[in-house]
This record gives sequence, structure tokens and C-alpha cells, in this order.
Amino acid sequence: MFKVILIVGDGVADRPVRELGGKTPLEIAVKPNIDELSKRAVLGVWDPISPGVRPGSDTSHLSLFGYDPRRYYSGRGPFEALGVGADIRPGDIALRGNFATVNDELVVLDRRAGRTLPENRELVKYLNEGIGVVNDFEVKFYSATEHRVAVVIRGTTVSADVSDTDPHEVGVKVLKSTPLSNNENAVKTADVLNKLTLMTYKLLKDHPLNNVRVERGLPPANIVLLRGAGKMAYIPKLQEREDIVLGKCLAVSATAMIKGICKLIGFEVITPPGATGGVDTNIMSKAEEVLRAYRDGYEFIYLHVKGTDAASHDGNFKAKVKVIEELDKAVGHLTNNIDLESTVVVITSDHATPTSVRDHTGDPVPVLIYSPELIGDGISNFNELSARSGSLCRLRGTDLMYVTLDYANRVRKFGA
Amino acid sequence: MFKVILIVGDGVADRPVRELGGKTPLEIAVKPNIDELSKRAVLGVWDPISPGVRPGSDTSHLSLFGYDPRRYYSGRGPFEALGVGADIRPGDIALRGNFATVNDELVVLDRRAGRTLPENRELVKYLNEGIGVVNDFEVKFYSATEHRVAVVIRGTTVSADVSDTDPHEVGVKVLKSTPLSNNENAVKTADVLNKLTLMTYKLLKDHPLNNVRVERGLPPANIVLLRGAGKMAYIPKLQEREDIVLGKCLAVSATAMIKGICKLIGFEVITPPGATGGVDTNIMSKAEEVLRAYRDGYEFIYLHVKGTDAASHDGNFKAKVKVIEELDKAVGHLTNNIDLESTVVVITSDHATPTSVRDHTGDPVPVLIYSPELIGDGISNFNELSARSGSLCRLRGTDLMYVTLDYANRVRKFGA
Repeated sequence: MFKVILIVGDGVADRPVRELGGKTPLEIAVKPNIDELSKRAVLGVWDPISPGVRPGSDTSHLSLFGYDPRRYYSGRGPFEALGVGADIRPGDIALRGNFATVNDELVVLDRRAGRTLPENRELVKYLNEGIGVVNDFEVKFYSATEHRVAVVIRGTTVSADVSDTDPHEVGVKVLKSTPLSNNENAVKTADVLNKLTLMTYKLLKDHPLNNVRVERGLPPANIVLLRGAGKMAYIPKLQEREDIVLGKCLAVSATAMIKGICKLIGFEVITPPGATGGVDTNIMSKAEEVLRAYRDGYEFIYLHVKGTDAASHDGNFKAKVKVIEELDKAVGHLTNNIDLESTVVVITSDHATPTSVRDHTGDPVPVLIYSPELIGDGISNFNELSARSGSLCRLRGTDLMYVTLDYANRVRKFGA
Repeated sequence: MFKVILIVGDGVADRPVRELGGKTPLEIAVKPNIDELSKRAVLGVWDPISPGVRPGSDTSHLSLFGYDPRRYYSGRGPFEALGVGADIRPGDIALRGNFATVNDELVVLDRRAGRTLPENRELVKYLNEGIGVVNDFEVKFYSATEHRVAVVIRGTTVSADVSDTDPHEVGVKVLKSTPLSNNENAVKTADVLNKLTLMTYKLLKDHPLNNVRVERGLPPANIVLLRGAGKMAYIPKLQEREDIVLGKCLAVSATAMIKGICKLIGFEVITPPGATGGVDTNIMSKAEEVLRAYRDGYEFIYLHVKGTDAASHDGNFKAKVKVIEELDKAVGHLTNNIDLESTVVVITSDHATPTSVRDHTGDPVPVLIYSPELIGDGISNFNELSARSGSLCRLRGTDLMYVTLDYANRVRKFGA
């Protein structure tokens, strides 16, 4: 069995950029180390979900690691909670929440409490200190961007089959959550959501930070509106799966959502110093962590670089080229320090984020698989165009994980 | 509609072999007849299940014949029974069994009765004569390798939802089978398994062959432990399927498992003299059977050659090359004696068995489809590498059967 190093440039796949003469950042970037590996590897394109489907970072990463998102993705509630670093476990429910402004009759005046809310973290802390448990359910709030929070509810009888307390419009009263199925657990959970919503109001309405906001003419963040309850599905860890053979796995990433998913499925997770998730991230320090784990006997090591995606969302193709060139140096450091006779190396993108679109698209992404037991395609430049003629042809969804592990001799036989 | 001849070199697909200068046995073998057909055929690669998934012989053959194994594969019990030539029908359950050694309190002393058990066939015959029926279920034992047996249980109320009597360890008592669901049939079947287990003990404990074993200091084979109950799924025969048009089908093979699967789905099955399933098999005598059936109006003829797989499991790439060269002569004999203007010929592998791995892998395998109605790719050497650039690109699972039958004009319209 070989070790595996999987390297993802988040959103690195692009479309032709007019300002780059109709070339993509991957075509323009000077990346001798990736291209050298490319010559010895097999190439192809990969549809992270299936052709044309636009992936989120969550669904694409489930797929990347061999978990069909159509089976394992349990909605935005649980995965946004993962994305803010929440401790969420199979069976928990999670909801998305807004700090909002209501009047004394609980009529919603502003669903976002002005949207800009620097007090978010402090108010969340106050709520967690003041609540903690409702009936026999554990409740925990997590701070997110602007006015947003995530709420995780844990209990043996908790149900996601409950309606929102968020009315999704202003000028009407906060809604009562109701059970969406004829189920005792749903009845209990709706009751908890209603109590919880009132508790947030009672705790927040006279909070000193809100008094200051009112004095400044800002809408107070005096309630949390809840929506989109979802239950975290049971997901077997990589090490528990019956179709593959994996031991210790490490993910090197600076992105909360990715770290959350990786932890959930059995990776140890590390963010080295200088790894920021931005375009200025220190990729070399991530490569060092990969090498340390490689020497420590880790069998599957995931290196995630977010800077390419960050640059793409800003439409900044120049910064994207620069991050690719930094990534290339890190790849060179890796390939110079691992045993290529006993290691499978994969380089790909979790989805395309064309700088022209500034968001994820459903385009296929290029993929490169190096294995000591494979004759390479001899393609000496790794990019969206060259990968089209690679011998892997077009893989989709969970295929990529299985193909990778097959070439590492880590797939169990289906049948006899 | 054209006739179809499907030729499979079992496990013939390989990875580059260091000792062959980094080439595969298919690349090295002198095979002018296959290569001549290759020029006129379309080539591609095929993933027997899906990319990277390691197939067993059973699952890959279901897929090869257009039956999705994720739907039709009912576990090792029924398919191992097929593999020892058992008469097993949809609705039957089958279990894997071990001759084992227990003491008077039914404590397991040796789960394999010493493993080497030349008395296997005679003891199985004795059990079948002594048992036959338990309650209203028919029970039949089949001899397998060493200490192993297969047991097929038939009855209108039989259930596979029962636990093992095999404790899977020594020093503990034989287990009582219990129903795994709250179902009357499961209760009845567990009861039958418990009675059956005791019956094997009563019949075997004083059997003369066991007395001889004890005298020689060998552990007596005085009970059969049962595990892995599975119910044989209903599988429509090729001739009954509503998506394809096929009449008489013949499979030429010397391998019990393959013959069992072929019989199950509507093939007549023949093993000609000299066909052994080993590297010394007489492939030409198989080709003669193919030609006889071809002249007799058979519409789909399957030629299975096991020798390539046998050589691969031994890591013997030289023997593998030799079997390929023998297969090539048989292919020449076929193409010289059939009407290529009205016949589709397919050559492929049911899975890769790299000689370096000595077991099946999930690698894609090369495939060649000759049809009189197709312009070929002009690829003059049929192997793993050349097939990558063929126009079939990458097929998966049941695709290959449909593509084959489509070029033989034997697929029914889906829709109107």
C-alpha cells in the first residue's frame, strides 16, 4: 500500500481570461514542479459532483473524499455550523440564525439588526452563558459573519422536523415554531425553539451593548431568529469504511469549513503558523506540516490551499497566478522530499472559480494523479486545456477518491 | 441483428512490469490476430464497476452482462455457493460453512478442523444423505476447498435475516442462531439453522473417517459452523429482459463461479475437454465450441479464459504472456471462421489483475469492440496504453453490455 498526498488549489480551475490573452491562470503561471510531475502522471478532468452541477465547498469536499453529497450532505444548517468551527456531531440539529430587531410585541423591525454588528461575538458569548440548556437539550450559539450565528442543539430526542421562527419578512410577529411531522420529538423540539427564541429576547433586550446601539441610532440586536433546521447525518470515518483501507489521516488547512468536514470524517487537522486562507498565505509552512506527517507514518495527507479561491472571488487573476506559483514551490519541496516510488500524489481543484464569474461554477476541473505503478500520459503542462486529453478522461463525484486509492492499493474488493 | 462473440481474458489487464521493461504482458505478447482485429475496431477503457472500485469475479461478471452489481449482488453466501457449482435459485438462502472441531459441550476447539480435510467430499455426501430436509426447508451441502462448504436452504418461508452459528473464535460454545428482524420467517429459519447445526454434530461425531482422524492425531471434522446467510436475488434472464433482444446464449468456461453466474442469467454452459481454468488450458478447444455454437444459431457467445488470471495471482508474467499468445491463436481461428460482416466481436478483461499486486485491482481495463457497422480507430496494438486513446473513451459498469448490443442492433428503444 502506498501513501497518498492530495493537494487542492481551492477554486484554481478557471475559464480563459481575456486580460491574460484568453489563457487561464493555470496556463500562465510558471510552475515547473507541477509540470514535471504532470509528465509522469495521468491527467483528466473531474466533475466534483456531476457534470454541470455547481458545487459548494462543503459538497465538493464530501465528494472529494469519497462521500456522495447526495447521500451525506444534510443541508446548510449543519454544514454552515461546521463552517464556523462548531462542535457538531451526528444526531445534533443545527440552525442558521440572525441577530434581528423586534419591538415589544415581537414584531420584526429589521431581520438583520442593521447587518453590521461588531458586537456579534460578545452577544453570542452572553447568550451561551445565559442559556446552555433548554428543557433537556444542550444549546450552543456560534458567531458567524455580520449579523449571522449558527445554533447547535444536542439531545437524544431532538428533531429537525420543525418550522422556522424567522418570519423572513419585516412588519410581522416572530413566528412560533411548529412540528412538521406528527412526531413527539418534533413537538418537543419546536417547543424548545420557541422557548429559546424568547430567552434570546429576554437576555438581549436590555443588554448594555444594545443600549449603546440605540443611543447611536442603530437598531438593537435584541432577538435571534432561527431558520433551516437540519440534522447532522451519521458519516462513517475514513478509517471505519468497509470499502477502503486507511489509517492515520491529516488535513492541513486554514479554512474553518474544510477543517470541520475533515475532522468529521476522521482527519486530524492542523493550521500551521502563517496559513491564513488568503492570498498572502504561507503555503511552504503547510508543505512542512505535510512532510512532518509523511515522515510520521500518516497514510493520507490532504493539503488545502484557499488563496486561489479567495483571489478568484475578488476577480483578481494576477493574485491567482501568484498563489499558483507559490503552490508550485511547495509542490517542489514535497516531491524533493518524499519517496515517489511509494507515494501517490494527486493535484486538483475542488471546483472551478472563474475570475470572470467570481463564484464557483460547475465546470470540470483538471486533475493529475501520479502513481509509481502507472505509465504517465507525458503531458508536460498541467492546466484545464491539456487535462482534457489525459487518459483518465472524465471522472465524476466520488470516482476520484476511489481511483486515487486504487492506485495506492487501498481499495477493498467488492465481491469475491 | 448481428451475432455477438464476447471474449474475456480473466484479469488480463496489468500494470507496467519492471521485468518486462516497464511494459505490460498485453504489450509484450505477440498477438497478430487480436491486433489485426484491433485496427478495425473501436477501443477504449472500461471500469467494470466504476472507476477505482476493485471488482470480484462475481460482481465484475454481473456488470459485464449488464446487471448492476449494486442491485443484483446478494453477498458472498449465494455467490460462493454458485462458485462451487451449487443449484441455487432466486429466493434460496445460502451460507458459508466450515467443518470444525468441537468437544462434547460444543465448545469450538478448531474452527477449521485442521484446515487440510481430504475427507470433505465424502463427509458432505454423508450429511446430504442424512439430512435433506429440516422442518419444511430443503437443505443441501456442497463441498468447497479445504475445510469449507456451502449450504443452500430452500423453502417458501426461508429468510436470510439470521445470525451465524459460527462464533468466529475458539474456546467458546457454538452460537445459537437468532432472528435479526422481528419476522416470523427469520424466527423459523434461525430455528432450522440451530437444528441443522446439531444434526451435523450428531452425524459427524462418530463417523468412521473422524475416528481415523483422531487415531492419527488429527482434529475430527465433527460439526459444520455456519455464517453469512444471504438470499439469492431474483435476476431476470437475458432472454427475459425488456431492454435487450437476445435468444440462445452460450458460455464457454471452466470456472465454477462464472458458470454458475452464466447459468443463472440464461446462458447454456459448456466446459470442453482440456479446458482447465489454469495456465495450461486448451483455449483452442474452447474456440471450437464457440464456432459450433455460432453455426448452431446462438446469438451471444461468451468465451472465458481463466489462465491469464491464474498466472497473475501467481505473479507469473511470463506464463501470462504465453496464455495471451494462446488466446490470440484462438481469436485467429475464430475470425477466420465467422462472418465478420454480421458479427460483433468484443475483447476485454473482467478486471485488472496486475502481476505486481497478485490480486484484482480497480484499474480500468482495455476493451476492443469490432462491429461491421463501425469505422475502427486504426489502433494496431491492443493493450492498456493504446486503448486509452481509443474513441470509446471510458465506459463504466453495465455500459459495455449496452454498447456491445447496440452495435449488434439488439437494444430495445427506451421511450418512443
